Amino acid sequence: MTDLDSLLTGEPVVATAGADLFADALEAQGARVVRADWRPPPEELTWALDAVTAAGAAEANAGAVERMVSVRPALTGIAAAREVMEMGERTFFHAGPPIEWADCSGPMRGALIGAMLYEGLAETPEEASRLGPQLELSPCHHHRAVGPMAGVISPSMPVSVVRDLDGEGVAYATLNEGLGKVLRYGAFAPEVIDRLRWMERVLGPVLGAALAHREPIDLRIIISQALQMGDDGHNRNRAATSLLLRHLAGPLIDGDGPVGPRAEVFRFVEANDHFMLNLVMAAGKVGVDAASAVAGSSLVTTMARNGTEFGIRLSGTGDDWFTAPAPVVDGLYLGGFTAEDANPDLGDSAITETVGLGGFAMAASPAIVGFVGGSAMGAVRRTLEMYEICLAEHPDYKVPILEFRGTPTGIDATRVVRTGVTPVINTGIAGKEAGVGMVGAGVVQAPMECFTKAVEALAAKEVAG
Amino acid sequence: MTDLDSLLTGEPVVATAGADLFADALEAQGARVVRADWRPPPEELTWALDAVTAAGAAEANAGAVERMVSVRPALTGIAAAREVMEMGERTFFHAGPPIEWADCSGPMRGALIGAMLYEGLAETPEEASRLGPQLELSPCHHHRAVGPMAGVISPSMPVSVVRDLDGEGVAYATLNEGLGKVLRYGAFAPEVIDRLRWMERVLGPVLGAALAHREPIDLRIIISQALQMGDDGHNRNRAATSLLLRHLAGPLIDGDGPVGPRAEVFRFVEANDHFMLNLVMAAGKVGVDAASAVAGSSLVTTMARNGTEFGIRLSGTGDDWFTAPAPVVDGLYLGGFTAEDANPDLGDSAITETVGLGGFAMAASPAIVGFVGGSAMGAVRRTLEMYEICLAEHPDYKVPILEFRGTPTGIDATRVVRTGVTPVINTGIAGKEAGVGMVGAGVVQAPMECFTKAVEALAAKEVAG
Repeated sequence: MTDLDSLLTGEPVVATAGADLFADALEAQGARVVRADWRPPPEELTWALDAVTAAGAAEANAGAVERMVSVRPALTGIAAAREVMEMGERTFFHAGPPIEWADCSGPMRGALIGAMLYEGLAETPEEASRLGPQLELSPCHHHRAVGPMAGVISPSMPVSVVRDLDGEGVAYATLNEGLGKVLRYGAFAPEVIDRLRWMERVLGPVLGAALAHREPIDLRIIISQALQMGDDGHNRNRAATSLLLRHLAGPLIDGDGPVGPRAEVFRFVEANDHFMLNLVMAAGKVGVDAASAVAGSSLVTTMARNGTEFGIRLSGTGDDWFTAPAPVVDGLYLGGFTAEDANPDLGDSAITETVGLGGFAMAASPAIVGFVGGSAMGAVRRTLEMYEICLAEHPDYKVPILEFRGTPTGIDATRVVRTGVTPVINTGIAGKEAGVGMVGAGVVQAPMECFTKAVEALAAKEVAG
Repeated sequence: MTDLDSLLTGEPVVATAGADLFADALEAQGARVVRADWRPPPEELTWALDAVTAAGAAEANAGAVERMVSVRPALTGIAAAREVMEMGERTFFHAGPPIEWADCSGPMRGALIGAMLYEGLAETPEEASRLGPQLELSPCHHHRAVGPMAGVISPSMPVSVVRDLDGEGVAYATLNEGLGKVLRYGAFAPEVIDRLRWMERVLGPVLGAALAHREPIDLRIIISQALQMGDDGHNRNRAATSLLLRHLAGPLIDGDGPVGPRAEVFRFVEANDHFMLNLVMAAGKVGVDAASAVAGSSLVTTMARNGTEFGIRLSGTGDDWFTAPAPVVDGLYLGGFTAEDANPDLGDSAITETVGLGGFAMAASPAIVGFVGGSAMGAVRRTLEMYEICLAEHPDYKVPILEFRGTPTGIDATRVVRTGVTPVINTGIAGKEAGVGMVGAGVVQAPMECFTKAVEALAAKEVAG
């Protein structure tokens, strides 16, 4: 009643949405205006949105997202990339949508150069650069794989094998190298290559032996628990890494083989709170692959960046990519670096947001703002906003502070277009020059252009079909 | 402006505080009344509050709480209780204020019986019961020690040694046995005694050897990080235990001695997310002992329960205890148990609340409500309320969701009396019959009577002095 009273007796305030014309005119006359950050979808997309709806997207999406959240990904072992994926000697996988050497950004080139040095294809960075155009580049996402930042996977690298305990799905990801001067951020100094060789020689085999000593490690359980412990699953993985170490340390204590390498491996993983990131990504890849190829579905099954372009794929449009220029990240910079040094957005790690983690789960992870910037309440608001564009609330990934509401999961491209709300992604930032490495971390919005293109393509397919 | 409008035009609402007489009369006449949950301190305490203030409590408190939060407690080793504390063969320490065998509750008797069996002082529970009155009982708190629930420390038990890296302080606590049928909840079945013997024979020595292999483990850092990871430091210690395991696993992998016991010890600690509780308590004890004996200070340095009485001590009143009957805990019960089975409040673990953790830090730990009941927002409100009775915000223990505000730390007994707000404690619940063990967990308020008695005593001392 008092609300109604104040409406009648208070100063008039006008709330506007959509085109600014009306609001501008009111303000010019001295009226108070509150502008809602919404505008109607462009008129030229109405046919597409209508066509997708008419073709039964609602039912298709329900089925697709159910498949996505129902997988039970578990870490079962470690293998050399070439053992589990089809790769020639010069086949290098990379993050994001397809790209040619000529179009690669600095950090992507840097990572490819580093991988060539590591594989022994070149002796010097200069030689590697000359060899670059002869590489057979292919997106990780085309090979059941994912990689953070540059996401380069070369044939000799050890990868984790993550299998769906409830199905046939499997996914692969490189092992995380740590922060700073590392290959995935485009660094290729000798220390980077030495570390990669140690990972191949010691880390992979010792972890593989430890895993062989125990049952598969259920990643869904670890991720669920980690969200109760302040992780978001993308840039904050301290809890998940701690829980993983609890699983690994037993077999590292009483496992086979010499004790020295076992202790080295434990201390390497222990020193890197981001170790779980790559495993969370592989777990996500099992989910999105399970959800792909559902006819008529506007569920987003891929968001990935190659440092030049941002690309997405929908369940209902098969293997087609819809791309836009990779955006610049708004973030915090490491000492000595500024936004000037930053490469545009990079990496397959936005798979975490694609499956309801990362930027979508930031309400569970208020402490992440120390890494990516912003306020704790801002982190909560980001999660709340993502419910507007998602199809489901995750049945296992829950946010304590939201009274254990499931994270917003399964982006519907049509909702993105209708609402104007684009997916939020938190991410590391690579230096734009090859060889520099990490320069910061921050938050970025996926480009709307990818979603409008994707919805149009889905609509065209449905109309044609 | 619209707020003011609605005040003038809306229905009148009366907010009342203090005695109910006025509110009752208004309601009898049909007026809407909002009763604030506050009443003025009893008139007979006005002299005491005034005397404490006049004697310079503000300055004394500032100094005392500064000492409390400035310690840097670290786990340095493991020792047998009798090696580090003065104990005769029949000296048993216990939780809470002083108590005689005749006044002990079921779980306290159960724990003392179990400890007698463990020490070989008796062969059967019946024999131990007869021997009970001959024990020399003394509070842990009198011996730089603390123990959760019954808190029984007998001479052979291994205890953690926690030293202040920045001072002379030291504190001791037993090692945590896990949940369920355990001595501290009053259980004394053969499995309980066997576990205690294994802890003496294997756990203590192996942990001691691992600690000897590395620098002291800074508990303040672990606790600070754990609050960013959803722990409260009292009933949720999954993060802190995980971080502790990260410190311990290295030396357990490449430490000395046979591998079997090292693996056993790792898996024992790994299986118990409450393992860190006792270490958080010992860290707290280092803090409160540093803050004790400041003349004129109304800072609460002890809150502890022996299952019969709840007792507190103030910095300015030395070793005197101010007690009231231990309250009943409002909580969640394990399958098959009800409130009927519950013993009144028990344990030294309220030291966590005394130093700004536990119930005071629940805003950092929304997931704890799955263990102790209530809602996530309720957990936030509990922390917010505690700022009203505290002297400081902890410089290291920060709550991410409150934009990294320090936890409310250092209870001022005069503020408790003035505001009517009593400290909130979250806690385990022991079965009231000896031998039963844990029956649930919940939340309890410290009894006001302890604080009024303490403030009167402090005032009397100041007036006399």
